[in-house]
Amino acid sequence: MWNDRKVGILGGGQLGRMLVESANRLNIQCNVLDAENAPAKQLSAHDGHVTGSFKERKSVRQLAKTCDVVTAEIEHVDTYALEEIASEVRIEPSWQAIRTIQNKYNQKEHLSKYGIPMAEHRELVKNTPEELAEVGAQLGFPLMLKSKTMAYDGRGNYTVNSKDDIPDALEALKDRPLYAEKWAHFKMELAVMVVKTKDEVLSYPTVETVQEDSICKLVYAPARNVSNAINQKAQELARKAVAAFDGKGVFGVEMFLLEDESLILCEIASRIHNSGHYTIEGCPLSQFDTHMRAILDIPIPPQSLELRQPSIMLNIIGGATPDSHLEAAERALSIPNASIHLYSKGASKPGRKMGHVTVTAATMHEAETHIQPLIDYVDHMRSQRSDVKTKPQSSGPSKPAPSVAVIMGSDSDLKTLVPGLKLLKDYFGIEHAVDITSAHRTPTFMAEYSANAASRGIKVIIAAAGGAAHLPGMAAAHTALPVIGVPVKGSSLDGVDSLYSIVQMPRGVPVATVGINNSVNAALLAARILGAFDPAVQRKVEAYAEKARAENMEQKGVKMQELGWEKYFEQM
Amino acid sequence: MWNDRKVGILGGGQLGRMLVESANRLNIQCNVLDAENAPAKQLSAHDGHVTGSFKERKSVRQLAKTCDVVTAEIEHVDTYALEEIASEVRIEPSWQAIRTIQNKYNQKEHLSKYGIPMAEHRELVKNTPEELAEVGAQLGFPLMLKSKTMAYDGRGNYTVNSKDDIPDALEALKDRPLYAEKWAHFKMELAVMVVKTKDEVLSYPTVETVQEDSICKLVYAPARNVSNAINQKAQELARKAVAAFDGKGVFGVEMFLLEDESLILCEIASRIHNSGHYTIEGCPLSQFDTHMRAILDIPIPPQSLELRQPSIMLNIIGGATPDSHLEAAERALSIPNASIHLYSKGASKPGRKMGHVTVTAATMHEAETHIQPLIDYVDHMRSQRSDVKTKPQSSGPSKPAPSVAVIMGSDSDLKTLVPGLKLLKDYFGIEHAVDITSAHRTPTFMAEYSANAASRGIKVIIAAAGGAAHLPGMAAAHTALPVIGVPVKGSSLDGVDSLYSIVQMPRGVPVATVGINNSVNAALLAARILGAFDPAVQRKVEAYAEKARAENMEQKGVKMQELGWEKYFEQM
Repeated sequence: MWNDRKVGILGGGQLGRMLVESANRLNIQCNVLDAENAPAKQLSAHDGHVTGSFKERKSVRQLAKTCDVVTAEIEHVDTYALEEIASEVRIEPSWQAIRTIQNKYNQKEHLSKYGIPMAEHRELVKNTPEELAEVGAQLGFPLMLKSKTMAYDGRGNYTVNSKDDIPDALEALKDRPLYAEKWAHFKMELAVMVVKTKDEVLSYPTVETVQEDSICKLVYAPARNVSNAINQKAQELARKAVAAFDGKGVFGVEMFLLEDESLILCEIASRIHNSGHYTIEGCPLSQFDTHMRAILDIPIPPQSLELRQPSIMLNIIGGATPDSHLEAAERALSIPNASIHLYSKGASKPGRKMGHVTVTAATMHEAETHIQPLIDYVDHMRSQRSDVKTKPQSSGPSKPAPSVAVIMGSDSDLKTLVPGLKLLKDYFGIEHAVDITSAHRTPTFMAEYSANAASRGIKVIIAAAGGAAHLPGMAAAHTALPVIGVPVKGSSLDGVDSLYSIVQMPRGVPVATVGINNSVNAALLAARILGAFDPAVQRKVEAYAEKARAENMEQKGVKMQELGWEKYFEQM
Repeated sequence: MWNDRKVGILGGGQLGRMLVESANRLNIQCNVLDAENAPAKQLSAHDGHVTGSFKERKSVRQLAKTCDVVTAEIEHVDTYALEEIASEVRIEPSWQAIRTIQNKYNQKEHLSKYGIPMAEHRELVKNTPEELAEVGAQLGFPLMLKSKTMAYDGRGNYTVNSKDDIPDALEALKDRPLYAEKWAHFKMELAVMVVKTKDEVLSYPTVETVQEDSICKLVYAPARNVSNAINQKAQELARKAVAAFDGKGVFGVEMFLLEDESLILCEIASRIHNSGHYTIEGCPLSQFDTHMRAILDIPIPPQSLELRQPSIMLNIIGGATPDSHLEAAERALSIPNASIHLYSKGASKPGRKMGHVTVTAATMHEAETHIQPLIDYVDHMRSQRSDVKTKPQSSGPSKPAPSVAVIMGSDSDLKTLVPGLKLLKDYFGIEHAVDITSAHRTPTFMAEYSANAASRGIKVIIAAAGGAAHLPGMAAAHTALPVIGVPVKGSSLDGVDSLYSIVQMPRGVPVATVGINNSVNAALLAARILGAFDPAVQRKVEAYAEKARAENMEQKGVKMQELGWEKYFEQM
């Protein structure tokens, strides 16, 4: 049967543990090679596990005898041991892929052949101050000095700010094989989990990662304030990079988004990855599910890699005391929509990954709101540690993306829009952008603005215009979003010119027209549109109507009953 | 620390297994009492488990010694053993609750005191044909003859269609304590999972269940075609019923929705339940998470019980051969958005619960489409079994709910609406309702129709009217949804009367007005509104604009270039 093959896993840490969790649901037996009672072994009670280290040749050979496929939850395995057993057992991904990837310089040289964009880099051969100074002259300062091997979570990296740092840098990384990398001035770090199956390369959405102390701190899925085009481009780059390696399974691809919106690859991991933990709750199939399926040639429906809801993952890192991480988890218990994963590694050490929390919500803004108190707490925990001195890496809580764009052809229309803008802002609290763009004076900018609105997250455009009012109709011609038109009354024709110009659009390009000068109704209409898909907004629309009803009946009506219409009229 | 208490579980089947899965993520140790290598024990490698049966007093006492809290994954435990150990260890829910609930007659008598509506029932004391005939005369036929105890998955129930069935019924349930229940003519079976904590009673959404061979076959979350009012009422009834019992934990409440839209309780389970499996993927906290938290006084944010997305759960029941369930699971591997749970019970028997599959999607209709081939396959599997003879229980795939309502004051407006309706139906494939309701002739129906539209799942209303066109504005006054108004041209004033009546609404009640007679633009505007939140619809709006561009430029424009304007005009 499809699930009767046994899988051997090199390493039984948290990644192996979550892999076993997935395998259990399909009743696939995993034999784990690691120390006794390693986190992964705790979830899998049988006598097929191997006690030992994934770095020891003997243990790797022993594991191979117990299973049909061998995979690894870590890159730093003995690939020569894997090469030896390759004739007896399937290894996924291939030992060649793991060997190339575990040496970061070789990884980059290999990817260069496939045309993958990366930061410029130079190999060091002699590791002398003179050689590094020469490389520095070529790449410029600051630069990153990196160990080719055994580098992870910031270990094996040294920032060389200037020529003066050269002796310290070489001392810090002495006896290691080195290369230097040109500094990447990036505006955001992105990551994509890629699944390589026997005949396809699939990808999860592009996520945003925030690193702190060179360890992953936060993952935002999808990446915030990133256009759909960048999201797609990053996935394509990641798939192309992973396609350059042999074998099956999940790979993690980290990238930089540069100031000019171009992407360069940062590095690849030949395994399930911290930046993919969000997939457990965020997607129908997690990275652990798809890794297990890929290595066993079990089908993976591509749609199952799409996001169910925006998700944020926060790592729980060991703090100053052995129990700090449990205190963080305790806080997480009260966070709405938070799923908690503790790794059962026993007592923690400062800086060690002890667990993670994922929050999902209908909108990224809601997820951010829920998780913020927990981010504050882990920042506090970190401030208690004596081994780190720097300030916490801010996640830069995103300004919520506007969902309504309000545009006018000229600032003379602003005063007409003010009552509507106030309603959006003060009563509804709906994020909105306000801009001047004219169909006649800035036709190109108007066209671009309208065409890009949807990819910015805008759901509705409100456009005000007077006279031969073209703006709402032209905006509608450049977007697939609903456009609400507000006819502005000019000095002649009482606004009827504006009304007809806006409402009498040709078949094929609709404008939702409201009454002359009635920006309040434009704002309310925008709220009704958002509210049809967001219960919180709809409740506010209902409350607005209820307020109007109460005012009309209980205040004005009662007052007229009390005073009589004559006195009422006198007081008006 | 909050997670250092050990939990003892009576029973190690699939419910215990999924409970252990949850506990593992919080690093809470579960000691399971059941046979060696029971499904739950497989996920939890430690030496704290107890080998034995949850029905044996000795084993229960032994388990109590190993843990701080005892809970059960099954009702049919020895509550006298629990009563004995109650002074040494906490038992959740209380042994009194389990004892009352495990006897279905006592359960009902208890709930009666709390005013819970149920089908009429009568106790049998002598179990003679005469006694049952008398009860039948009181309750009418058909009636349900039930065993008070040890009844689950249809075992212990007998349908008595008429007086003639009495001897067979008493023979089938001989030597059991019996009661009879009046037949409930229900139109739907609903269920609600309830979480009782130390100080609150929380509930998950109301779901629809489909039973086959007296076993749960399908669960739809939320229940389909059920109003928000019924959903809330069912949750309230379930919470009220569970509040009648002592102790903490998750309870499953099954109900009937009768033809008159009233609800009666069917039965309660004092434990996690098959109808709550959808919560693993469907909600931020699953029923297993919240049961573990409730019995350990760990916080539960109520929002974490809300649905992320519509979900459907399908049970995988043992078939004709020991491997049939694995063949069903193999089919499920290719179903988009399907999460598979196999219970690792070893070889299957016909009718045994071997696993389940949950499909989540953005809409219920999409989830139904994905899972249908798997439902067909399990129906086929069932047809191969020699132990069942009846036809499969159809889930009655729901008609997709309309998202647009199109209304007109009189059928004379229909011809104006036809081009827009055709566009909605043929080009966009958007589900829509079309109705006649007039602000002037059916003011009350018009008000109700508009007020109920949102709870039916309608997102946009299109209203056409001519002359003193009140319908769009009055509909808008009765709903918080966006209303699109189509001014219909009458015999005088060229439609300007209709346009002004629709567009010049007072501040506070907006109508999105389109051009006179322009139902095409109304349909397109509705599509743009839906498309702002549904990428598939938005892509169709974009394609529509592209088609118009191509037609204008590549067909007409090119033709005019080829022919010259004079010839072109002649051919027009």
